[in-house]
Amino acid sequence: MRIMGIDPGFAIVGYGIVDMEGSRFTACSYGAITTDKDMDMPDRLKHIYCRLMEIIDEYRPETVAIEELFFNKNAKTAITVGQARGVAVLACANSGLEIFEYTPLQIKQGLIGFGRAEKEQVQFMVKAILHLSEMPKQDDTADALAAAICHGNSSTCLRRIKGGIGRNAGKRKNGGTSI
Amino acid sequence: MRIMGIDPGFAIVGYGIVDMEGSRFTACSYGAITTDKDMDMPDRLKHIYCRLMEIIDEYRPETVAIEELFFNKNAKTAITVGQARGVAVLACANSGLEIFEYTPLQIKQGLIGFGRAEKEQVQFMVKAILHLSEMPKQDDTADALAAAICHGNSSTCLRRIKGGIGRNAGKRKNGGTSI
Repeated sequence: MRIMGIDPGFAIVGYGIVDMEGSRFTACSYGAITTDKDMDMPDRLKHIYCRLMEIIDEYRPETVAIEELFFNKNAKTAITVGQARGVAVLACANSGLEIFEYTPLQIKQGLIGFGRAEKEQVQFMVKAILHLSEMPKQDDTADALAAAICHGNSSTCLRRIKGGIGRNAGKRKNGGTSI
Repeated sequence: MRIMGIDPGFAIVGYGIVDMEGSRFTACSYGAITTDKDMDMPDRLKHIYCRLMEIIDEYRPETVAIEELFFNKNAKTAITVGQARGVAVLACANSGLEIFEYTPLQIKQGLIGFGRAEKEQVQFMVKAILHLSEMPKQDDTADALAAAICHGNSSTCLRRIKGGIGRNAGKRKNGGTSI
């Protein structure tokens, strides 16, 4: 199964595509889509959308796990990043992917069994699970790969239990939601 | 000049397209795109995007005036509506439109010269300026038409002053921003 993970953002969108065979994961492609602060807002959204469409078209994942956004205070930032997340979800929907969303806590839980893990622990586990020679350069990229692994782990668990992968695989194990 | 106005939202997106000849406005098309709360979130975003693309393709406006979002408290709502606004802006950008954004206060100022006007006053003015036989059914539709008229008024003012319409027309008169 080929899974894409996305850590949405406006200046940086992390993405990671992993292949899962049995319980083994390998990294297929990963990186970050960046948009310059001097670009017009519509052009930044367009760039995120077009690059995601290109990446999906090239690597053809079957499902996508996208991180949920949390903002407690700054509603203006929430709107800005929400706009970018909207076009990321749209790129996945227009490509016909099944889309699951996970909170950061669920992703950590699914990756290392502990929802309050530090950022460095997440990065270390991503590197170890995917047998990478070095850490991804951007935190956002590591988080995107973590989301993909988290979703894969949820699916593996369900397959063991039920002998099949359901649409709400994420929902059962780590609380990820099919959206 | 043909101008589109958009009042972005997740459940309801108001839109209105007006033609401006001299200082006279006529309504070309207006209405609301609605998404059902029982639909999956990606499908709702996809519906908004596809319908806007269809409307733009059918009526071919030259510019679009989109209302800015304001949320003081609920960041979760801000993310949700931000996602919908993101795909609306993307539809305009992918259609090659010039995009201007206006705050609700700027729209009221541009429509009736008074930023603190009541909703009913806005609706009344929209109906009067466009010579409509009755009010648009949705508030969001009236707000979208108001945004389009506001942008048209900004451009008219600039033409009188400078003999031409600049990219930042909205910015000079009512504080609208080219984005």
